[in-house]
Amino acid sequence: MSANPLPKSSLSIRRVGIDTWRENVAYLHRDCPVVRAAGFQALSKVEIHTRNGQGPRSILAVLNVVDDERIVSACELGLSEEAFARLGVVEGHAATIAHAEPPGSIAALHRKINGERLGREELAAIIRDVAQARYSKIELAAFVVATNQYELDREEVLHLTEAMIAVGRRLDWKGQVGAGPVVDKHCIGGIPGNRTSMLVVPIVAAHGMLCPKTSSRAITSPSGTADTMEVLANVELGFERMVEIVRATRACLAWGGTADLSPADDILISVERPLSIDSPGQMVASILSKKIAAGSTHLVLDIPVGPSAKVRSMVEAQRLKKLFEYVAGHLRLQLDVVLSDGRQPIGRGIGPVLEAQDVMQVLQCDPAAPQDLRQKALRLAGRMIEFDPDVRGGEGYAIARDILESGRALAQMNAIIDAQGRRQDMPTVGALSFEVRAPAEGHVIAIDNLRIARVARLAGAPQVAGAGLLLLKRLGDPVHAGEPLYRIHAQFEADLQFARDLAEKDSGCQIGRLDQLPHEFASGSLFSL
Amino acid sequence: MSANPLPKSSLSIRRVGIDTWRENVAYLHRDCPVVRAAGFQALSKVEIHTRNGQGPRSILAVLNVVDDERIVSACELGLSEEAFARLGVVEGHAATIAHAEPPGSIAALHRKINGERLGREELAAIIRDVAQARYSKIELAAFVVATNQYELDREEVLHLTEAMIAVGRRLDWKGQVGAGPVVDKHCIGGIPGNRTSMLVVPIVAAHGMLCPKTSSRAITSPSGTADTMEVLANVELGFERMVEIVRATRACLAWGGTADLSPADDILISVERPLSIDSPGQMVASILSKKIAAGSTHLVLDIPVGPSAKVRSMVEAQRLKKLFEYVAGHLRLQLDVVLSDGRQPIGRGIGPVLEAQDVMQVLQCDPAAPQDLRQKALRLAGRMIEFDPDVRGGEGYAIARDILESGRALAQMNAIIDAQGRRQDMPTVGALSFEVRAPAEGHVIAIDNLRIARVARLAGAPQVAGAGLLLLKRLGDPVHAGEPLYRIHAQFEADLQFARDLAEKDSGCQIGRLDQLPHEFASGSLFSL
Repeated sequence: MSANPLPKSSLSIRRVGIDTWRENVAYLHRDCPVVRAAGFQALSKVEIHTRNGQGPRSILAVLNVVDDERIVSACELGLSEEAFARLGVVEGHAATIAHAEPPGSIAALHRKINGERLGREELAAIIRDVAQARYSKIELAAFVVATNQYELDREEVLHLTEAMIAVGRRLDWKGQVGAGPVVDKHCIGGIPGNRTSMLVVPIVAAHGMLCPKTSSRAITSPSGTADTMEVLANVELGFERMVEIVRATRACLAWGGTADLSPADDILISVERPLSIDSPGQMVASILSKKIAAGSTHLVLDIPVGPSAKVRSMVEAQRLKKLFEYVAGHLRLQLDVVLSDGRQPIGRGIGPVLEAQDVMQVLQCDPAAPQDLRQKALRLAGRMIEFDPDVRGGEGYAIARDILESGRALAQMNAIIDAQGRRQDMPTVGALSFEVRAPAEGHVIAIDNLRIARVARLAGAPQVAGAGLLLLKRLGDPVHAGEPLYRIHAQFEADLQFARDLAEKDSGCQIGRLDQLPHEFASGSLFSL
Repeated sequence: MSANPLPKSSLSIRRVGIDTWRENVAYLHRDCPVVRAAGFQALSKVEIHTRNGQGPRSILAVLNVVDDERIVSACELGLSEEAFARLGVVEGHAATIAHAEPPGSIAALHRKINGERLGREELAAIIRDVAQARYSKIELAAFVVATNQYELDREEVLHLTEAMIAVGRRLDWKGQVGAGPVVDKHCIGGIPGNRTSMLVVPIVAAHGMLCPKTSSRAITSPSGTADTMEVLANVELGFERMVEIVRATRACLAWGGTADLSPADDILISVERPLSIDSPGQMVASILSKKIAAGSTHLVLDIPVGPSAKVRSMVEAQRLKKLFEYVAGHLRLQLDVVLSDGRQPIGRGIGPVLEAQDVMQVLQCDPAAPQDLRQKALRLAGRMIEFDPDVRGGEGYAIARDILESGRALAQMNAIIDAQGRRQDMPTVGALSFEVRAPAEGHVIAIDNLRIARVARLAGAPQVAGAGLLLLKRLGDPVHAGEPLYRIHAQFEADLQFARDLAEKDSGCQIGRLDQLPHEFASGSLFSL
């Protein structure tokens, strides 16, 4: 941190319009005198110093050496969009650069790479450096791999979670809308179509509970709750707007991305995603840090279990459940974990518009509504309602069902939509479609969540809200040869072609004999305890 | 690998003058129709397809989204220098892009991240993908961390080494200069000033052995053998030139960087370096793959041991030695490992010019020459000479000494320098200097190799050939308060100031009582067996 600036080598800051995602990149011309004198090389890490009205500012950045005057000249210091925003000064401002000392926590990172156990202070130092963008992508990847699988013990996961909370913003509902429990639900993800939040939130709010829900947009899935909700209403709400909405309706369904609740986690996810790493310790710290930062006091957590879900066996699910319970317990978050059937998608629609249609059908008590989505939402809402001290154990489900069937949940949802801002130009289902058909007669004995998600993404979801697919058959359903299994919807011809090509290689649906169908949590199968 | 191109969305290739080191980066404008239609995001991995005279070409690249028309327009596909060179077509050429399937070996990478053992074919697939630049920096970092420490067993290290050899070029001396052993020496590094190669090579060549030595430039050290040799002669020789020189003088001292001997290793090093990871398995595979690719049949390997050397204890040194021996044995490379004293720098000079002066003093049998450098070079040369079947075990040292003292080594070195091209404009020692002094009376009881190296680098080495430092005191030497410990040399005022600031914070030399000096390989110390 204490690198010495080069006092005589002041450079003029230039914003370079390149989105390097979460990494600060500095672009210096090969002929820049500082590069030559100080012996910087490509991928060197540099520390950039400047000052604005508030005082001195500095960031760390990775160096890319440039040979093109149109990008930066020899007396300029180019900054990627991320770096420019973080430094917080205007173009043309003077800055100096120096060789960066490694971030202070690098010694702790090396201890973890070498398989050692880290203490509370070491994890806090790493997370502070991560949140301040002092780690390069390479260092972030090293941290993510070194803490992969069960390489963090439960104390370390607790300390990681605390560290993530400490560097983020914390929403204070008590100060804004009064004391009392703030209930929340979360699913660890991986199941397409699983839009229970949009049902659970209006139900528990109708019961009188505070449920200010923030959700994510899709990262690798065809739709996140925020994407699906956005079909119906505005979801980009600042905290002040959320407070107003929650005061009026006890609930909201907002995108959490602007809330800066766990900035270190957002940065770590930017490397976990391309590596497809989602280890138990990282998952627990990520989810619980965001929930606690969002001010939740009570949480129902859904862990779907299935051969193509994130959690593939009951052994794994139980282990993950204990880890969540241990960390939540120490952070005084009331947690109820529900293990659910993750063998196939939930509901029929996959993709923002198609999922929103499922949700509205359930709220409208349409007999054609997908029953699996309805049942699962009622089960989860029931567990949340049982956080109410006045509700007896076991009564939550019936209360939730009454709220849904009486139309109070629909009324509550409409109130939330109106408060957030009802979407006037509601997108519609993509006009182009293609039906994927069964190759043979039999029963559906497996549906691959990952494959289905990929087909829906190639069709354009979630960027194209009306794209995705509609599941026409479910596990155990009999099919004839040539009968449609699902219908792909797209808006663009190229997207439809992509999705169709993938589905024709492997639809993700397996046809076989009914006795080959793995039973939920059956022993001897993948689900065995 | 089988991603589908977007046939209708052909883009015009543009070379973007940004050096992203070893990573392929594609720059696409945010308004590019392909980005919008296919939903690419920053850091997505894309596959780029085109064709040239030789047929179809494709590369994988990481995507940076650009908002500046001066860098790329909406109908262009910008490529970083590395990506442009790899694709091998001209600017304006048409290309299509598609979502990249992960490289075929990613499943194996995940198995390794999860702590599993990889087979020969899996390691070969990973190294092929690495050499073809199909891995992003994040994936490279994941591989490096997952194979860190002793997480590769010795079979895996052997297979990694074989895989690295298989993807590189191999030098064929037998076909060029006749059969017979090709001897080499290598030091695992980390000891400043340790320029024994420039003495060992002329000595063994004078004995009649073939010793075509390729060396590296400094990466994190103040000078590599190639940097120091370059003070005296041209070191950038193609293979054809090396063959001519070796035919004439039986030896050369060339830079190995252009030889493409282990391209996968060169790429892995680009992430190992910023992570400061240098694990046993990676070290063995890196060194042995390059030696075998360079055509060596016999190798003396120097492993310095000391508290600030790469290897810090005899236990660690012995373990590393066995691993080198195991892999070399299976690859039919005759290997003799020498464990040496790595408690302090070797010689007096640190930095290209200062080290070259030490080397020439030893060759000239100058009584003022640094005796530690002379002794170590003779010891290593002796071990190499004993590869000669006609030399009795134990006689090598005396033969080496005779060659040095008779002036034959100097004559041989002059012949090598003349053959490579004697440098006419030999650089001189930096004119600016500063003496770092002992704070108190006592004896020098520790010299920190890493600290000394950093001071020399800040002074400008190796980019400024005359920069570095001259050690005036060595372990065990008595000093008075205020007596100079070393003298920093620099060419630029700012560099001198940098180096001086660092040295004044901590010189790297510890003064104490003589009985506190750790003895080489003494038991009970860091060196205990």
